[in-house]
This record gives sequence, C-alpha cells and structure tokens, in this order.
Amino acid sequence: MTESVLGYLQDNRERLLKKLEEFLTIPSISTDKTNLDDVRKAGQFVADYLIEIGFDKVELKETAGHPLVYAEWLEVKDAPTALFYGHYDVQPADPLELWDSDPFTPEIRDGKIFARGASDDKGQVFMQLAVFEAFMKTTGSLPLNIKVCIEGEEEIGSENLYPYLKENKQMFDADFAMISDSGMVEKGQPTILYGLKGFTGLEVTVQGPNRDLHSGLYGGAVKNPAMALSHLLAALKDEDEYVTVPGFYHGVEELSAHERQLMNEAPGEDYPSSLGIPETTPEKGFTAKEHTMARPTLEINGLYSGYQGPGTKTIIPSTATAKITCRLVPGQDPEKVQELLSNYLLNACPKGVTVSVQKEALSAIAYKVDPNHPLLKKAAESYSFAFEKESVFVRLGGSIPVVESIDELFGMPVILLGFGTPEDNLHSPNESFPLYHFDKGMEVLVHYWQNVADKNS
Amino acid sequence: MTESVLGYLQDNRERLLKKLEEFLTIPSISTDKTNLDDVRKAGQFVADYLIEIGFDKVELKETAGHPLVYAEWLEVKDAPTALFYGHYDVQPADPLELWDSDPFTPEIRDGKIFARGASDDKGQVFMQLAVFEAFMKTTGSLPLNIKVCIEGEEEIGSENLYPYLKENKQMFDADFAMISDSGMVEKGQPTILYGLKGFTGLEVTVQGPNRDLHSGLYGGAVKNPAMALSHLLAALKDEDEYVTVPGFYHGVEELSAHERQLMNEAPGEDYPSSLGIPETTPEKGFTAKEHTMARPTLEINGLYSGYQGPGTKTIIPSTATAKITCRLVPGQDPEKVQELLSNYLLNACPKGVTVSVQKEALSAIAYKVDPNHPLLKKAAESYSFAFEKESVFVRLGGSIPVVESIDELFGMPVILLGFGTPEDNLHSPNESFPLYHFDKGMEVLVHYWQNVADKNS
Repeated sequence: MTESVLGYLQDNRERLLKKLEEFLTIPSISTDKTNLDDVRKAGQFVADYLIEIGFDKVELKETAGHPLVYAEWLEVKDAPTALFYGHYDVQPADPLELWDSDPFTPEIRDGKIFARGASDDKGQVFMQLAVFEAFMKTTGSLPLNIKVCIEGEEEIGSENLYPYLKENKQMFDADFAMISDSGMVEKGQPTILYGLKGFTGLEVTVQGPNRDLHSGLYGGAVKNPAMALSHLLAALKDEDEYVTVPGFYHGVEELSAHERQLMNEAPGEDYPSSLGIPETTPEKGFTAKEHTMARPTLEINGLYSGYQGPGTKTIIPSTATAKITCRLVPGQDPEKVQELLSNYLLNACPKGVTVSVQKEALSAIAYKVDPNHPLLKKAAESYSFAFEKESVFVRLGGSIPVVESIDELFGMPVILLGFGTPEDNLHSPNESFPLYHFDKGMEVLVHYWQNVADKNS
Repeated sequence: MTESVLGYLQDNRERLLKKLEEFLTIPSISTDKTNLDDVRKAGQFVADYLIEIGFDKVELKETAGHPLVYAEWLEVKDAPTALFYGHYDVQPADPLELWDSDPFTPEIRDGKIFARGASDDKGQVFMQLAVFEAFMKTTGSLPLNIKVCIEGEEEIGSENLYPYLKENKQMFDADFAMISDSGMVEKGQPTILYGLKGFTGLEVTVQGPNRDLHSGLYGGAVKNPAMALSHLLAALKDEDEYVTVPGFYHGVEELSAHERQLMNEAPGEDYPSSLGIPETTPEKGFTAKEHTMARPTLEINGLYSGYQGPGTKTIIPSTATAKITCRLVPGQDPEKVQELLSNYLLNACPKGVTVSVQKEALSAIAYKVDPNHPLLKKAAESYSFAFEKESVFVRLGGSIPVVESIDELFGMPVILLGFGTPEDNLHSPNESFPLYHFDKGMEVLVHYWQNVADKNS
C-alpha cells in the first residue's frame, strides 16, 4: 500500500513543490502588525488544503491573537488517533539585504528551496499535508485517525495556544502527538529527538550607592556593586562547571550507560573549530555531548554595570545586573530551582550593598520519552528505511514550549519527526530546506503513519 | 601692610564682582569646537587683566590646542618665586534645562554666585588675580615673585600643557607652585590638602565563542565568558576589600598614627545617609576616611556582556568586558601596578576562553607633601586666621594630573589653596561659589603671600 502512496508523491512532485512555493509566498510574519492579513491568509491556505484533502470540521478557530487551524479525520475504527501540531507563521525576514533572493519569492538553487519558512515550519507542515493528500488520493483513507492543530503564533510565544488547548481538551485529545518542527543532527542523518530541556531564569541586581560615584572621592568607603556582583556570580559555579548552589541537582536522574552511549555516538559539531574556542569545558565527569543534551546548565546571558563607552570613566557604578537562565533536565522543578537560586543570591548579599532578584515569568519543565518507546522505535525504523542509514537518538539542550504544554495538558507522548538541518538558517537570512529532505522526509512520514497504524490494526 | 591690601579688596568688592561676572559671561567651553573663539576670548580676558595689574611678559602662548596665558613679575630680590597655575576653560553647561539661571549670565542669589566656572576654576583664578591687583595698587609691588600659567585645556585633559612645560622648563621654574582649583571639606572649614592619589587602569576582555550562542544548544560545551570574567574579577579582591593581586601593596607606606589622626579628625560626609548605602566597607583595619584618603583602591568602573535589554535572551555571550581603575598612593608605581594586574589577569585565564588586556594610556603618580612642610604650615595659619577656625589636614582620593606633572617636571612642592565647597555642583547644572568664600578666600591669599614673603625677607 505504501508503494502507491510513495508513487503518488513522486508523480505529483512538481505540482506539490509549486503548491509549497505558493504557501511560502505569503509573508505570514506573526510579530508584525502590518502583516495581520497575511497571517490569516496563510491560515486560510492551510484550511483550504485540509478541505481539499478531505478533512472534516476544518475551521479557523479565533483566539485573542492569530487564528489556529483545526481539522480532523477520524474514520478508522480501532486505529490510534494522532494530534498533528505545526505552525503557519514565520519569523521576520530582516535584514533583507543579507538575502540572496527575496524571502517571499521562493527560489530553488543548489538542491535547496530558499524562502522564509522553508524549514520553519511551513515546509515541514506542508510535507505532512502532502502525505495526508497522497494517502487519501491513493487509498481513499488515512491509515489512522488524525487531528490537526496548526497555529499562527509559534514565533511570538504561542501565547494563545495553551489556554485554547486547555479550554478545548476534548477536541484535541489523542493517543500521541506528532510535530515536524525540528531537525536532524546533520544532513541525511536520521535523528530521533527523545528529550528536551526545561527552563527557568532570573535577573539579579546589586544596588550600591544612589548614584554613580567618583572613584577617587568614594573608593574605599563604598562597596563596588560590580565587584559584589562578581563575587555573587563566581560563587554559583566552580571551575569544573559544577553548579555550587545547594540543591540545584536535586532530583536529577543519573545518566544510564546506554543513554551516554547513544549521545556520544551521535554525530556532532566540532565545537573548537566551528566556534573558535580553545577547548570545550563540560562539567567534570561528562562529555560535551552529555552535558549539552542531558545535564542541567546555568548560564549568564547578560551583564551590565557602570560605564561601557570607549576609554575610561572613573566611577563606582550605582548598580550591577546579571541575567541568568538555567536549562533543566527531567526531575528538576523549574520553580523550585528558581526559588533556591533566588534565595541563594539574596542570602549571599555582601555587606554595604543590597541584592534584589526579578524572577523570569516564563519557565518550562523538561520533557523526555523513553528512547525504547514503541512509537520511537517505529520512528527510527521509518527514518532509517527512507534515508538508508541507522538512526541516532539524541536529546536537545533547548526547550520547545509546545511539547511541554501538550505533555502537561494531555499526558501523551510527543513524537518529534523533524527534517531540518543545521544549515537551514532558521530565523536568519537565506533560510532554506534541502529538497533531498523534502523527498526523503515524506517517505519517512508515509512509512511511519503506516507502521503506527499496522501495529494497532 | 596686609591691612591696606584687605581694605582695598573691601572697597573694590562691587567692582571686582562685576569684573568676575564679565569673566564668567564668556562661554569658554574647551571641548566644544563652536566655542573656539570664546575660549581664546577668556584667555585674552586673563591676559588683559594681568597687563592691567602690572605683570610683565604677558602673552597668549600658542599650543596645538587652546593657548595658555603666561605672565611674570619678578621684582623682589631674595624673595621666593611662586608659579601660579589655573585654568580659564570650563565644562559644557548641558543639560541646560536643569539650570535655574543661564549658565553664562551670572546671577547672585542666596549668598552665592551661580554660573558655569564660578568655582571651577574662573572664580578661584579671579580671586588670585584680584589679590595681585590689590597688592600692586596699594603697595606698588607684590610681596614675592610670581609666574603665572593659566591654561585653556584643563577640562579636556591638559593635553598640550605637559609638553609645553617640558619644552620651556626655565620659563616656568619656581620655588613652589600654587593652585586654587580645589575645595574645602565643608563650607567655612579651612582645609589643607596635602596629598593626592595616583591612577592607573586597564580593560580586560574575556573572549569566548566567535558569536553569541543559543544557551540550550551550546550550554554545557562552552565556557561562558561572563562567568569566566566573574571568576577573574572576584579573585582580585576579597570580602575584606583587600586587593589580592600579589605585589599590589608593594611599596605602600604605613600610615603614621599622626596622619591617621589628622584624617579621622577631618569633618566628612555621612556616607550611609548621603549615598543610601547600608554601611561603609573600608579595607579591614582602616576607617573609611583612611581608605579613601590614603590606601590604594581597585574599582570596577564598568561591566558588559551579552544581552542587556528587557526580559530574557537565552544566549551564551561571545565576550565579556570589565573596565578597572586603581587609585594609588605614594610608593606605588602606576606602570608596575598596571603590569602586575595585567599579568595576573592573563595568567588566571580559565580553560576554554582567552583573556586580553588593554592598558589605559593615562596614568598618574600619587603626590604628597609632608603635612609639616613650612609652606603648608603657613597655609594653615592663613586659612585659620581668615576663617577663624582651625585648619584640617586631608589627602584626596582623586588625582589632579597637573599637580603630578609639575611635581615630576620641576620637583617643587605644590600648594593647593582651594576655596570650593562640596555644594558647588562642579561639572553639573547650577554650578555656584559662595561669596563668603570669595571674600574669606582672598583674605587667606593676602595673608599667605605675605607670610611666605616675610619668612624669606
């Protein structure tokens, strides 16, 4: 059965590419108020396509912001139901002068399609829709039940998605979720992403004198807030990159030998040469891959105090501030980590200054599926079959808030079948997506949907 | 003899104040190219006044920048020669909207004269010139020999003064120098300033990855430059405000019990209430007055790294920079301190990043006269007589580069007879100078010049 579906995709490749180009032509920049109509137009494009494919209950659901597209096709009795999530909005395209071709006039060159959204996420959403079309046109049905949720606000924080899902839980409930909005570790390398980090953050400010002071007249009487901040920050981490805040690692699970092996086997960037650093500095006892994928981190994101212009200004600054965020792993509670970090900083306040902490409102809990989960095994098989290469299993140091939202609201596994590459220039000029991944990715999806259905039929 | 001179000053007070106002009306802002002619006009005002008084060889000496005014009167055989230094340029007046009256339309209210330059330094230069006039008009002579050097570039770093003095050493050589460009610790409190701190500085930059990185994708592999900088800076000073860089205190003289007493007896600001700090934090074993006046300091003047805007940006910054300056005391060599600080930072470079240091070109060596020096004793007597209050002896945490230049070039003692107050708003809106200090200060000068002459006659 998959043969005919794959044949349909091959036979219709040119038409489908043209249709994708049509989708990419719509400048659905969700953050830009002047593109309000364009964003809706892209949502309508998705809705029209879903109707054309044969989905039911296709509708642009209104939210406080941009609408989200809902659709469902629930015709296979006793088959599982998957919730397919994606987004039709895109990042702004500026700086325009750095693009080699217009961001909203898709152009194919060097085996890639160049356009804003080509990879993130219009291109990957389109691949899913095209596969649904192929199943329907060749078999008259999808292999399993599908609910579709394509939002228009992912690039601006999905502010209205979570409340909408929460208020309409029944509508979106399913056996598992499927997202194609991520990437593979390198071109042509099947990649199973089975974990994401959580997130918390805060800003710490050391307040010294009520104004910048002459360093000659006051130096020696007054605690320097920038020096006090340096002492506070230096006490957060030791030279082995171990976070020294008591309790920070509470609940962190030990990495199994099996997981360590999976992570270290995955291909990865040669950091020193690509980043121009002398060497990597992971936490003592862990490799750089292990630390980025599966150990918590604490980073200073920004630092400011006093005079930053050219030359010298001999002042004692009035204040000094650091922005700090942590990436968390399963077992860590973002709010608890934020709380103990905040208390630690407040309690370590040196004499002569005051310390205040502003807690970051956004947070995320880490997400992980057992790498041996049957739905992941099937994903790995489908990937390997299409790309003719063994799949690697990795976790991501970043967070994908929607995954954590779905996990929290529905308690369902989220399968991340992403086809991007590290060279796609997401959020940057000259965003692109390789046609090889367009073709092979759709093959993966055909096999995957069929495999998942077969298991349950 | 002083009686007639003082009487002359009283009789001519209104006229002299009008003449000072004329001087203050000229917007001689040395940093502003549009005021080029005004700066010269102020120099010419000084030169004309010196001619009117009866000085010889009065001339605007051309430099690469604004001219300096030279004059001399060397008619008293066997009397010492004093070099009187001052400056006729002023700071910019902006923000203009914060002035209660026009900065270049002098206004007398509440017993003060308000104008840019009223205290720094036109007002105090004028007092010296008026005293010279009074001596000449009443006695036909000055009590001792005087050379005058009034520059027009003090507010922009005196860049051309040092080379000019160096090339014309004979012209400016004298037995001691006299400067009226400083202040008293509080209104009405005779203050002998007998020491100044030296100065050195540098900027340290920690270079990490070649660009800001996603903290999720790279956190754990890459050393965070802001954290590395915090460790470097925290290692410079301990919690007792002791600078932990080996060799930093090399050569620093111990403070005598006598000096400590002088410093602690001087009236001073109540730092916690005026600065809004919980408490002062001097180096362990010293009072805040002792530390600010006579112990070396190391201050972070500025700090910057990564994201400084509102909210959160989850990056590992590419670089982190700190600006550091030290105030030095007699016995410390600015270049040596800079060198050992630089080496210390470079050698402490953590793994995974590189550290670079940019040395600040400007430096100054500390200056001190023995508080028992006869010229200072005479100054204290003159002050106390005029203000009817005992003089206090203090050192200043700041630097006055011209003092250090004169000391270095000529090896002569520099007597700082300043009459400003902490409320004068130097370099700020509403600069002012109290008329009480205008009157009493001139009395001090009459007594002082006469006293110094008497000793030698």
